[in-house]
Amino acid sequence: MADAASYEYDLFVIGAGSGGVRAARMAAAEGARVGIAEDRYLGGTCVNVGCVPKKLYSYAANFHDSFDDAAGFGWELETPARFDWPTLRENKKGEIKRLNGIYQRLLENAGVALYHARATVVDQHTVMLVSDQDEQYVSAAKILVATGGWPWVPDFPGCEHVVDSNQVFDLETFPERFLVLGGGYIAVEFASIFSGLGSETHLIYRRDLFLRGFDHEVREFTRDEMQRKGVNLHFNVNIVQIEKGRNGYRVTLTDGEVIEVDTVLAATGRHANVEGLGLDTLGITPDAQGKVPVNERFETVVPSILALGDLIDTPELTPVALAEAMQLVDIHFKSATPPPLDYASVPTAVFCHPNIATVGLSEEEAREAHDSIRVYSTDFRAMKHTLSGSGERTLMKLVVDDASDVVLGAHMVGEDAGELIQGIAIAVGAGLTKADFDRTVGIHPTSAEEFVTLRTLSRR
Amino acid sequence: MADAASYEYDLFVIGAGSGGVRAARMAAAEGARVGIAEDRYLGGTCVNVGCVPKKLYSYAANFHDSFDDAAGFGWELETPARFDWPTLRENKKGEIKRLNGIYQRLLENAGVALYHARATVVDQHTVMLVSDQDEQYVSAAKILVATGGWPWVPDFPGCEHVVDSNQVFDLETFPERFLVLGGGYIAVEFASIFSGLGSETHLIYRRDLFLRGFDHEVREFTRDEMQRKGVNLHFNVNIVQIEKGRNGYRVTLTDGEVIEVDTVLAATGRHANVEGLGLDTLGITPDAQGKVPVNERFETVVPSILALGDLIDTPELTPVALAEAMQLVDIHFKSATPPPLDYASVPTAVFCHPNIATVGLSEEEAREAHDSIRVYSTDFRAMKHTLSGSGERTLMKLVVDDASDVVLGAHMVGEDAGELIQGIAIAVGAGLTKADFDRTVGIHPTSAEEFVTLRTLSRR
Repeated sequence: MADAASYEYDLFVIGAGSGGVRAARMAAAEGARVGIAEDRYLGGTCVNVGCVPKKLYSYAANFHDSFDDAAGFGWELETPARFDWPTLRENKKGEIKRLNGIYQRLLENAGVALYHARATVVDQHTVMLVSDQDEQYVSAAKILVATGGWPWVPDFPGCEHVVDSNQVFDLETFPERFLVLGGGYIAVEFASIFSGLGSETHLIYRRDLFLRGFDHEVREFTRDEMQRKGVNLHFNVNIVQIEKGRNGYRVTLTDGEVIEVDTVLAATGRHANVEGLGLDTLGITPDAQGKVPVNERFETVVPSILALGDLIDTPELTPVALAEAMQLVDIHFKSATPPPLDYASVPTAVFCHPNIATVGLSEEEAREAHDSIRVYSTDFRAMKHTLSGSGERTLMKLVVDDASDVVLGAHMVGEDAGELIQGIAIAVGAGLTKADFDRTVGIHPTSAEEFVTLRTLSRR
Repeated sequence: MADAASYEYDLFVIGAGSGGVRAARMAAAEGARVGIAEDRYLGGTCVNVGCVPKKLYSYAANFHDSFDDAAGFGWELETPARFDWPTLRENKKGEIKRLNGIYQRLLENAGVALYHARATVVDQHTVMLVSDQDEQYVSAAKILVATGGWPWVPDFPGCEHVVDSNQVFDLETFPERFLVLGGGYIAVEFASIFSGLGSETHLIYRRDLFLRGFDHEVREFTRDEMQRKGVNLHFNVNIVQIEKGRNGYRVTLTDGEVIEVDTVLAATGRHANVEGLGLDTLGITPDAQGKVPVNERFETVVPSILALGDLIDTPELTPVALAEAMQLVDIHFKSATPPPLDYASVPTAVFCHPNIATVGLSEEEAREAHDSIRVYSTDFRAMKHTLSGSGERTLMKLVVDDASDVVLGAHMVGEDAGELIQGIAIAVGAGLTKADFDRTVGIHPTSAEEFVTLRTLSRR
């Protein structure tokens, strides 16, 4: 085995998304010689077709409610506000271009060599880089594969007419009638976004309730609130076929219903982005879910080849990829042995309307894992809606281990749920008890104070 | 001393505000015979002229920014939204009437006898109740005085022209030009409210910076943000006189400047509401601040006469009064000995624009109390404002004890700060460390995630 110094790079990263860029920068900060290859856009899914544009569109969709809510507070609009899709789309593009530039400067300032090229792993220390201009080989002591995921669309008659969650941000014209296929968080978010922007919106999901894996009460509450906001939810059905008509698409469902819409989004899952990387030739075989297996040091079966982020079997979230990147650099470039990441208490938010946020165990998971639990749940109208006239309600819920009093999970459906749950996640992650919550004085008047004033047991 | 059963009531409460109503209900729930007297409105300051209407008006004021922000997201208003003050005022009145009714039903359902009467303490077990109809005496084993506070206005030429923070909610006409005198949180909140609703707004404060007692960086940041939003801040000046002119009021300042406005609000402090209660005749004398001294059992020098809330020398906040009420009932009606309330980690919010929220020690307090501290501070543009075009910035700050790594204080200026800080307050109250914060995975994209990703030390 060659000495590390004989390679061009100490670390070569494939994929300049959240995890790859963070790992590259942090390793470079430790003095490592680092290169990174990206064949598409800097910042990966999060910046370009994920978290960032999704949140911006979610803000845009929320204004609709704001205009309605304002009347009760004395604000009069002579004519209804008009939504212009190209303005949103182009302003979004401008912002993403700005962020791409920030990522480029972050890498440059860290001294990371950036290759705009398609990378393939050739052997355990060699990467082939192919661009329009040329083809070259670089050697590295360690290779980090951080190519993330890519939308997956099932095969059915007319599936060529759908757009995926990458394409939907840049639709040429605004869909007055919008249909989304899927029951994961991406499907639910886009249903809320287009409904909020003014589309007649349908969500089609083959099971009986969306957001599998989330707390059941949260899922039911979200269903009810989305329906109240006018999203047409079709559960226990699937798409049989899509036909292109003169005026949009005719979508035929398994129950015989036909829905005519302008755009069909397939939010039917994402697959790990392993194709064409050359991993198979090195014996690195994806698992049944298509994920790349790694050990706790993020090493594949070839120890010099590492992987993290959406490519491996951990929660597909930007902050998880970032945490993994820092963990990986600690292990491989600082020779530190940090405690393993606590994936069980990773908080997460869904930016449907109203928002969902959650940390720790659902009520169902807690019942599985613990002898006896206590559930505190409240469902109220936020103060704003006493004047807005909106019927929107907010759900907050704590799941507590009866024996230890430890708060196992916290869940919320309501405005800015992610903002509220972040602080709660510190408490839950540290294993604080219901008594710690109860001892905390409320901030009045907020919605969040409900989390520290849940005195009445809902059920055991 | 007579047996408790020989009194008509086990507890008689004077004042049906947040603290009084909570104590009355909780004591009744323990089987006590409880009466309560109120000569004004059920729910006290919070419901009628404090937290509730203030937050509703703050929401109303925020819509103004929303309309401006919406353009960058593709929403076009043909004509600017018009604000109608009477609509807000009357809708507010309707909501408060609804809340008054809720308070009445809460008391009735708890079996508390409600007297719409002015109460005076006659002796250690007797209260005189005077209403339009009659005058009567009731006896009680314990008397709880919970009469709260009342706005105080200084004496100066023309001070008869000002309104106080009780009256300002119900102004007959909307002030196109608004001036507030004072530098406390009430002054700052109303400056933001009227500025947001469209008034040309001035704030006059005799010292060099408002919000004394808050973290200094928070105060300066808030000053800058309020100025950016167009509030005219005049520090180091005071009002010399107010003259009524043909067209509003001429306000002359100590620096010679004359400002013409339609309404002058004096938010110059609140005094404990002790007058006419008869406490002095029993030897219960207010302290230098006008507060009623009590021991940790909320007993005055006359042990059968109790006091809590804004009447005593603890933070003047609804949740504090509520916590004190529950503590008091635990002590006096459950014979429990709960741990004393932790006033040091009471979180609080100021509903100026942007909002402030805070828990624990300011940087200055931490420097006083600890040998060595670490400060982590970040100041950023929230994601929404990348498209809104607003220059609004957000400040987040953690103050950490260097030796123990314990987070001593958390501070924020930005949208929904109170909602974000509530969860953080659980963590700070429980004495969690910066490492506990750092270990928590962020919820992306939120503003709150900054609180768990503050890696760069700002200063020691």
